[in-house]
Amino acid sequence: MKSSSEDTPPMAPQLLSSRNFKSLFDSVDTFLFDCDGVIWKGEKLIDGVAQTLDLIRSKGKNVVFVTNNSVKSRRQYAEKFRSLGVPSVTQDEIFSSSFAAAMYLKVNNFHKDKKVYVIGGEGILEELQIAGFTGLGGPEDGEKRAQWKSNSLFEHDKSVGAVVVGLDPNINYYKLQYGTLCVRENPGCLFIATNRDAVGHMTDLQEWPGAGCMVAAMCGSTEREPIVVGKPSTFMMDFLLQKFGTETSRMCMVGDRLDTDILFGQNAGCKTLLVLTGVTSESNLLKEGNEIEPDYYTSTVSDMMKLMESP
Amino acid sequence: MKSSSEDTPPMAPQLLSSRNFKSLFDSVDTFLFDCDGVIWKGEKLIDGVAQTLDLIRSKGKNVVFVTNNSVKSRRQYAEKFRSLGVPSVTQDEIFSSSFAAAMYLKVNNFHKDKKVYVIGGEGILEELQIAGFTGLGGPEDGEKRAQWKSNSLFEHDKSVGAVVVGLDPNINYYKLQYGTLCVRENPGCLFIATNRDAVGHMTDLQEWPGAGCMVAAMCGSTEREPIVVGKPSTFMMDFLLQKFGTETSRMCMVGDRLDTDILFGQNAGCKTLLVLTGVTSESNLLKEGNEIEPDYYTSTVSDMMKLMESP
Repeated sequence: MKSSSEDTPPMAPQLLSSRNFKSLFDSVDTFLFDCDGVIWKGEKLIDGVAQTLDLIRSKGKNVVFVTNNSVKSRRQYAEKFRSLGVPSVTQDEIFSSSFAAAMYLKVNNFHKDKKVYVIGGEGILEELQIAGFTGLGGPEDGEKRAQWKSNSLFEHDKSVGAVVVGLDPNINYYKLQYGTLCVRENPGCLFIATNRDAVGHMTDLQEWPGAGCMVAAMCGSTEREPIVVGKPSTFMMDFLLQKFGTETSRMCMVGDRLDTDILFGQNAGCKTLLVLTGVTSESNLLKEGNEIEPDYYTSTVSDMMKLMESP
Repeated sequence: MKSSSEDTPPMAPQLLSSRNFKSLFDSVDTFLFDCDGVIWKGEKLIDGVAQTLDLIRSKGKNVVFVTNNSVKSRRQYAEKFRSLGVPSVTQDEIFSSSFAAAMYLKVNNFHKDKKVYVIGGEGILEELQIAGFTGLGGPEDGEKRAQWKSNSLFEHDKSVGAVVVGLDPNINYYKLQYGTLCVRENPGCLFIATNRDAVGHMTDLQEWPGAGCMVAAMCGSTEREPIVVGKPSTFMMDFLLQKFGTETSRMCMVGDRLDTDILFGQNAGCKTLLVLTGVTSESNLLKEGNEIEPDYYTSTVSDMMKLMESP
């Protein structure tokens, strides 16, 4: 008997080929792309990305960019796409974890009179402001120092009702102390993490500590676990579904990380495609003991263009 | 039948009284004291401590100070005792987690050609040097910044064979990046934590993030768990036993924290006495769900003096 489920993804990851790509492409309305390690690496666009995105759009598919990097706002991301030579990407196609943090507060009716302390970049503060919330901290506290002196009391704002923690290149004791006091002492204060990626490519050449480093620091001092709004949490999926009026089974998540991108896609019920331009190597993917397996994998995003153009 | 085990500690914590104190005092050769929250709070000696220590010594008992605070070396701790009006305490009576980190490397034959990267205070570097090891990092890296620029490579010393992480008031991204690269990329590099206290009294008035904050940050970026040398790990106990030629059942750990001091005492087989001058309140001790119970508890160390002097 012939298998009746040509659309059902196989159990083991399949190398993308001209045969299985057609089946994947036809079954998908919306391609979700991670950015860092998929679209670019540091400040360098990955070869063939712009043309591939144009070709996917020309076939009537939606493209969406789902990034855990919280340093930038959606506006700043659109600017980065433009500066790297992909001006076609609009703010509305970008779902960053900085946006997700602001949306989490919005859908949970966070009171506008309360404030949000930010350990992270300008992007979080910008998204909070657009959503109508008052943020404090962030880059402004980068040079502040806390003094350990007898009888010194560290004052913190009692109206802070949430601490949002993301990747912070200017992490310091002052910020960790401020955030810790809010979470430990302000009744009901939320502790929100943009994401928990251990490392990322802040430059082209190396992996550096990611938001998971700052989030873990806050876990260590508050003895609390955060609410995570970025990948692999599926919090952002509700926005995507509403926007595109589709089902998650007709989406495909394209990413370079197993523990965030591919797990996110799987958690949400999407198809998944791993590219090898980022943190995951083919040997890591295929090694024994790896428990997160994408439906498909290929070397780079522009392989999709070659497969679309092949006869 | 009368219980045959008058010396066996009861299951529930007992408030120290003139009756049970005599039995405790007679059964103990060595009193181990935590410092912060027991002997002092920030830069202020707790009332009656100096006289109580003198009285305990005058009865032929040993006193030892076991502190998780790694910011100071033993020499610096002896200096602190002197400056607060307790000049009788010598370096040899002090077992700090900075000393423990150096001793861990020593007993594990850490190669003298390898280096140790320090996220923490001067005290760790001083103890490493006394033990014959080469440390780098620490306060010296407090003002360094890492640049996220395309094609920038962060150089780290490939001969670093251990990263020691303790409380660091000058924690920054540079140090976390340096330590993370060593642990992730130098083959066999050890990851040692002085301790994992979530918070501590860096000033008299508030709890501030403790070494557990910096250690957790490194766990978040390295995806590794550390070797812990301070309380509640019993690593330092071997030194104490050798020094005093006694049994742990004839020691009593006096501390203000359930999850470090009291657990450390219990893990090592000591008797335990909680004082309420630090982070644990009586209501926290007695609340339902608390699983770490000392044998005895009392309001402050000088209660021991009053009970010794009572008829």
